[in-house]
Amino acid sequence: MSLRGRHVVGIDVGGTNLRVSLAREDGEIIDRRHRDTEPEGLAADGIKALGEMIEELAAANDLRLSGIGSCGVGVPGPTDPDKGILYDPPHLPGWHNVEVARLLEEATGIPTHLENDAQLAAYGEFHRGAGRGSRHLVFVTISTGIGGGIVIDGRLYSGASGSAGEIGHVMVDPDGPVCSCGRRGHLEGLASGTSMARIARERIAAGENSSLASLDTFTAQEIGEAAGAGDALAISVLTNAGRLLGLTFGGLLNILDPEVLILGGGVVQIGAVLLDPLYAAIKEQAFEANYSHARITTAGLGQDAGLVGAVEWAIDHLPGGRPGPSAASPGRPG
Amino acid sequence: MSLRGRHVVGIDVGGTNLRVSLAREDGEIIDRRHRDTEPEGLAADGIKALGEMIEELAAANDLRLSGIGSCGVGVPGPTDPDKGILYDPPHLPGWHNVEVARLLEEATGIPTHLENDAQLAAYGEFHRGAGRGSRHLVFVTISTGIGGGIVIDGRLYSGASGSAGEIGHVMVDPDGPVCSCGRRGHLEGLASGTSMARIARERIAAGENSSLASLDTFTAQEIGEAAGAGDALAISVLTNAGRLLGLTFGGLLNILDPEVLILGGGVVQIGAVLLDPLYAAIKEQAFEANYSHARITTAGLGQDAGLVGAVEWAIDHLPGGRPGPSAASPGRPG
Repeated sequence: MSLRGRHVVGIDVGGTNLRVSLAREDGEIIDRRHRDTEPEGLAADGIKALGEMIEELAAANDLRLSGIGSCGVGVPGPTDPDKGILYDPPHLPGWHNVEVARLLEEATGIPTHLENDAQLAAYGEFHRGAGRGSRHLVFVTISTGIGGGIVIDGRLYSGASGSAGEIGHVMVDPDGPVCSCGRRGHLEGLASGTSMARIARERIAAGENSSLASLDTFTAQEIGEAAGAGDALAISVLTNAGRLLGLTFGGLLNILDPEVLILGGGVVQIGAVLLDPLYAAIKEQAFEANYSHARITTAGLGQDAGLVGAVEWAIDHLPGGRPGPSAASPGRPG
Repeated sequence: MSLRGRHVVGIDVGGTNLRVSLAREDGEIIDRRHRDTEPEGLAADGIKALGEMIEELAAANDLRLSGIGSCGVGVPGPTDPDKGILYDPPHLPGWHNVEVARLLEEATGIPTHLENDAQLAAYGEFHRGAGRGSRHLVFVTISTGIGGGIVIDGRLYSGASGSAGEIGHVMVDPDGPVCSCGRRGHLEGLASGTSMARIARERIAAGENSSLASLDTFTAQEIGEAAGAGDALAISVLTNAGRLLGLTFGGLLNILDPEVLILGGGVVQIGAVLLDPLYAAIKEQAFEANYSHARITTAGLGQDAGLVGAVEWAIDHLPGGRPGPSAASPGRPG
């Protein structure tokens, strides 16, 4: 018998919200809390807030903190999962090089395990979303940036350095623009939501007509709305981006041959004007065997994917491991 | 106790050779045979020849066929490993849609397991070549085409359809030439040995000077020799191809974050004029975390990688599984 209990906590540290959920060891979330993230705030304050929310959740559900066996934390930036360190989160400058797992564990006494949020979103979709029942899964998230996560043989694959799944940072055009990461021709620099808006602005500045020209600023969402109203420039921008995404994801099927490819992130909500050319380009690009064995679908958990993945990640690290028949070993190879 | 013995056979079916090795269950190859492949020959004849070589090896080593517990076969084309079928091998038209595993097993009585040869080469390098001691490995082979294989957590990852690792078939330039597979802008269409020779011929035809112009035909090997003698066109072709390979492999590090990236295939033998720009481009392209955790190296087993991988694949499928402490489960997930 372990001295620790079998409830778990899953945490999603986002650029706008800190979200904490309490779940049973079967993964069912029974309660949750959230607070706004201070964009310029310090990690110490954020970790204090997380600890307070965990205490609130325990008290509200008649649990001691020792009744919580494990905590999983998803963070929006590169991590060292073994050391529990978050490196340069682009939207949380106060969280640079922070030992999130150790600090939170010291605050709560609960064994705490860190992972990148896109990887945990993949893991959430694998366990409880669009990837249920699969073994090999690739998840891509298209929002301001493009990221992703990989599940191989039912286990989260985070790679040798914890940084696997950076699907936005592959070269798709040697003459393309410089990406947010500083390298030329990446998918993210041509087909993220941010890049779609930049390309639309550039084309308007170069003289093309568009209803978007009347807006001071706009994002991919407004491009989607303009496309829905028949704006030719907006349709063209989304068609081009969708095609480039699909060609890249088709190549990803050729390399990784997954059972399921899941498309997540806010930009996917734009719908058919983006997704139709995207799906067509995947089919055009992928080998027949790889294409026919892959189910291609949009995400099932929406904004909760990362939180659900953090819960599942915590369950993998319960003393004695994951309960039930599919159990035995932690979810990440080695 | 199993009724079957603990020796294994590993087979490499190539476009020019059929190669058969007999090994102990620790992977040590103790004897081998080979015959020429008939390029236009029928699979039935090839499988008969393989069966004869296995019988020769057993007799020469005082073994009954029942003393051989398992046989692994690498084939040069897309496979269904579960069904043991070889589909369209580009250089062996007589082997189209052949149930290689079943037919060979019927001929020998030895349980036989099929895999793609590039995947088995990756697995050979993992066990006994440049990837020894790693857990996550990516192997790429650059020869007439560009292929590869992936090992995750010490197990060969062949994907949902058996076709993972098709690293040559990702788009790297939307305006690039049509690839051998019929799709535009793939790495293989720009940086395989065949593509290097085509590009050199095109540039000579367009008026550039080169010592290669005096040759009726040439391959990447002659381009390498011309580059070694200072031919500016040859150096330029290899530099461009090396850079494109490196940019793509850097993106592969961003996606797969392996511990080891192994470069195999005959074209790699060209050496520094190709590899220097290749290595520089990987470093330029990969994220610092992924780059610093990856050992990048040339292959260690040369032409034997696939044969060694076939032996290791056979060992994974011995009754009772792989012997020794790293044992328990077969090498391919699920």
